Amino acid sequence: MTAASIAKDLRAAIRSGTYTPGDRLPSEAALMATYGVARMTARHGLSMLKDEGLTVTRHGSGVFVRAFEPIIRDTTGAPADDSTVTAEIDETGAGLTVRTLAVTAEADAPEKVRTALGLAEGDKVTVRERLHLRERKPVLFATSYLPASIAAGTPIAERDVGQGGTHARLADAGHAPVRFREDVVARMPSIEEIEELRIEPGTPVLAVTRTAFAADGTPVELSHVVLDAGEFMLRYDID
Amino acid sequence: MTAASIAKDLRAAIRSGTYTPGDRLPSEAALMATYGVARMTARHGLSMLKDEGLTVTRHGSGVFVRAFEPIIRDTTGAPADDSTVTAEIDETGAGLTVRTLAVTAEADAPEKVRTALGLAEGDKVTVRERLHLRERKPVLFATSYLPASIAAGTPIAERDVGQGGTHARLADAGHAPVRFREDVVARMPSIEEIEELRIEPGTPVLAVTRTAFAADGTPVELSHVVLDAGEFMLRYDID
Repeated sequence: MTAASIAKDLRAAIRSGTYTPGDRLPSEAALMATYGVARMTARHGLSMLKDEGLTVTRHGSGVFVRAFEPIIRDTTGAPADDSTVTAEIDETGAGLTVRTLAVTAEADAPEKVRTALGLAEGDKVTVRERLHLRERKPVLFATSYLPASIAAGTPIAERDVGQGGTHARLADAGHAPVRFREDVVARMPSIEEIEELRIEPGTPVLAVTRTAFAADGTPVELSHVVLDAGEFMLRYDID
Repeated sequence: MTAASIAKDLRAAIRSGTYTPGDRLPSEAALMATYGVARMTARHGLSMLKDEGLTVTRHGSGVFVRAFEPIIRDTTGAPADDSTVTAEIDETGAGLTVRTLAVTAEADAPEKVRTALGLAEGDKVTVRERLHLRERKPVLFATSYLPASIAAGTPIAERDVGQGGTHARLADAGHAPVRFREDVVARMPSIEEIEELRIEPGTPVLAVTRTAFAADGTPVELSHVVLDAGEFMLRYDID
């Protein structure tokens, strides 16, 4: 009996519903007894399932079938800024909290950001970095870039952007975002993202590039959002 | 020098642009000489980068920095059926082809499908299974379910659904889809998906559940779409 065969058996048992999300799988000792294998073989079989994202390990209590209870990030007509998250708390009861990590009133813009915002070389951007937490676990990291010509000197460049979030302040300044583009990819997390979002093994991230446009078509905000894919479902309603 | 340190050096070199997408990384032999390590250590260092999705191996020619040249799946107002893919060929030049794998005029519906389509127990569904290929590589697998009460006996239940695809036929039958919901998650592929889509190591899939609604709000089609995340970017325009 190889580790791969043990993994195959357990995988089939999870799919058929013998073990359902939240159930504990047999321990290494139980697998050793059942299959007559060495501990390393049993352990390797279990670790294969973990690398596929099918299980999670809780230290001291064992290996469990992973439950996917996603936060629904619903972008229908709503801005994806702090105010949306408040709405998500109400809707999902997931208890998301937002931690503003850093706000820079005037920063140099990376070339890709300048291009997306239609800025010239040397133009500055206001940068907001936020972390969203579900209970105490970080689940989403967002960096927003706005033309400093619009945002600097307004509450957008302050830590507390005020009621309604960045988009309400853009509206106050006559640049209300009315159209959004989201480009979504999935990939494995970088080492830094694994640490920052405390991502489980076998779990990708969703990386969303969001551009907000004012009524005249001017891009007013570019956001890079990285979401722990073990925690989120993105919902789009399209007319 | 450990495998992890070698991986860290190479990762940093990829990020800084010393090696750009498509470049060949140093061979095992070159790493052995540079770092004074055994072949297994060099090999393990390279395999760590592969598991992170940063590199691809081309047998006989070495390890290369992975290039991400995604097909843009643009859902703006367009149905995600065969006709869209034709549009994507024109737009992206990616040369997608569609292979209809199976069409079942009347099948039992899984409970989740019945619920999503508002069907009663015992109601049948028409099922269409399609594989999309980029050049010769499978990149997307889609299963669509439609109420057999609408689709059976129409070209939707035939292999060749005709010009305009499923949605044109739904319109012909007075059930034109006018609103769509897409729920997007990312996860590691199953063993079967890895084989079917020939997915590279360290690559997740995007799994999209798409529901199409007619003007009266009736769901007329449910599609499960699995996309190789190494090949796609999903684009949503939101008003």
